[in-house]
Amino acid sequence: MSAVVRPGQLDGSTRLYGIVGDPISAVRSPEVFNAMFAQRGVNAVLVPLHVGEEDIAPAWAGLAKLRNLSGLVVTMPHKGRVFAMLDEVGPAAKLVGAVNAARREPDGRWTGDMFDGAGFVEGLRDQGHDPRGWRVCLFGVGGAGAAIALALAQAGVAALSLRDPDTARRDALHRQLQHAFPQTRFTTDTVAGEAFDAVVNATPLGMKPGDPLPFDPAELPTTTLVVDIVTKPEITPLLQRAIDTGHRVHSGKHMHLGQARLVARFFGHEL
Amino acid sequence: MSAVVRPGQLDGSTRLYGIVGDPISAVRSPEVFNAMFAQRGVNAVLVPLHVGEEDIAPAWAGLAKLRNLSGLVVTMPHKGRVFAMLDEVGPAAKLVGAVNAARREPDGRWTGDMFDGAGFVEGLRDQGHDPRGWRVCLFGVGGAGAAIALALAQAGVAALSLRDPDTARRDALHRQLQHAFPQTRFTTDTVAGEAFDAVVNATPLGMKPGDPLPFDPAELPTTTLVVDIVTKPEITPLLQRAIDTGHRVHSGKHMHLGQARLVARFFGHEL
Repeated sequence: MSAVVRPGQLDGSTRLYGIVGDPISAVRSPEVFNAMFAQRGVNAVLVPLHVGEEDIAPAWAGLAKLRNLSGLVVTMPHKGRVFAMLDEVGPAAKLVGAVNAARREPDGRWTGDMFDGAGFVEGLRDQGHDPRGWRVCLFGVGGAGAAIALALAQAGVAALSLRDPDTARRDALHRQLQHAFPQTRFTTDTVAGEAFDAVVNATPLGMKPGDPLPFDPAELPTTTLVVDIVTKPEITPLLQRAIDTGHRVHSGKHMHLGQARLVARFFGHEL
Repeated sequence: MSAVVRPGQLDGSTRLYGIVGDPISAVRSPEVFNAMFAQRGVNAVLVPLHVGEEDIAPAWAGLAKLRNLSGLVVTMPHKGRVFAMLDEVGPAAKLVGAVNAARREPDGRWTGDMFDGAGFVEGLRDQGHDPRGWRVCLFGVGGAGAAIALALAQAGVAALSLRDPDTARRDALHRQLQHAFPQTRFTTDTVAGEAFDAVVNATPLGMKPGDPLPFDPAELPTTTLVVDIVTKPEITPLLQRAIDTGHRVHSGKHMHLGQARLVARFFGHEL
């Protein structure tokens, strides 16, 4: 685009994006995307859309009628419900039964995908960590964790150990991934003598004060990268403990920025 | 408010306003309101919402579910449909069966009113024209014209002549207004020897090239103010003709700005 649009200089032709969630006040997509739109001179805006869990079906039906609405970022608690309402979804979304972005196609259909996993890998690479050939241990295989496991397999990790107290969903994911990626070695428990290149927290532990650590970095060799996907605080108790025990750490903000870049690309923009 | 928010610096706490219409690209509310929000440091944004005529009911149902949506400006072709969907409307809206603004009340109900007429009078006063005691001739008593007639009566004009080829709606409005404002002299035809302080075009004539003039300023004394509510072009063929015949003119932009100020106040802001 050649025309430069100053931030906030919206008009009747402005293309609309939104982020649907509840709660909404702490979401960061408006700041990230609007800075990008302003910098690139794109006449578009991303606004927060506060939708309660029980209201997502009628809210979505109404939003879909807005002809200048081009895309939506989807956050808690709507990722699963919106997945079910879309006309078409990508493979990462199918694996986890959830989406975190949807867009209006030129023919009017709404399609979506889940960028949590790909954003995680993008964030690793941004920091110079290419996970190809890595042995990774992943704590938590809920929505975000499952998406991360898929993305790590796609990125070519050599081995991936899945840890979750919900052994049924852990084992189901194990079977799915082992079937789809026969070259990768998936495990669900400790293997004697195994050393990990990275251990990842994809559980919510660390968001609330007083949460226990998902694992203790002191038990890991100092060559192991300690990774958290919790974004607030940036240095979680897990990462602080890892720093104290002499480990390199990788915080949740990198995944968040990686995700934003991929969602922007899905929307047709370069962040 | 003390915090100053730079334009475009939206976040998850931003309050949302919209303008619903079709077509949408030429609406000016986003520029007017967002400049106001930025100047006053209000963390709010007004975005265009492109809704086709047949989609307004589901779109409205969905928009009403957005908890951070505080108000909507309503423009063509939705003014009548939205009127019918609101929980409560003001007197000007009741008279014309249409609204041009709606807001969410603290208890969750949606209320609305029609500010076309009051905005028209506000625009006159902005330019130093107080219509109290005036004799006015008004061409066109559709939605905007009827609202203007009511507002002129409320502003204390001495006489108001209503002109419209649709004699049924003209006569119905005549009866309503004469009943409500017994002190004001309403007519529907020329009275011999009558001189007007202002003659107003509230028909759409002048929006399209080649439209005939709604009336000929050459037949009016040069003391008569010639008024148009058409905003594009600002100097309509009617106003150009009036300028050529030595009349003072008052263009549609004044009504537009007056309306915007009143709608902003209805939304709880000062423009």
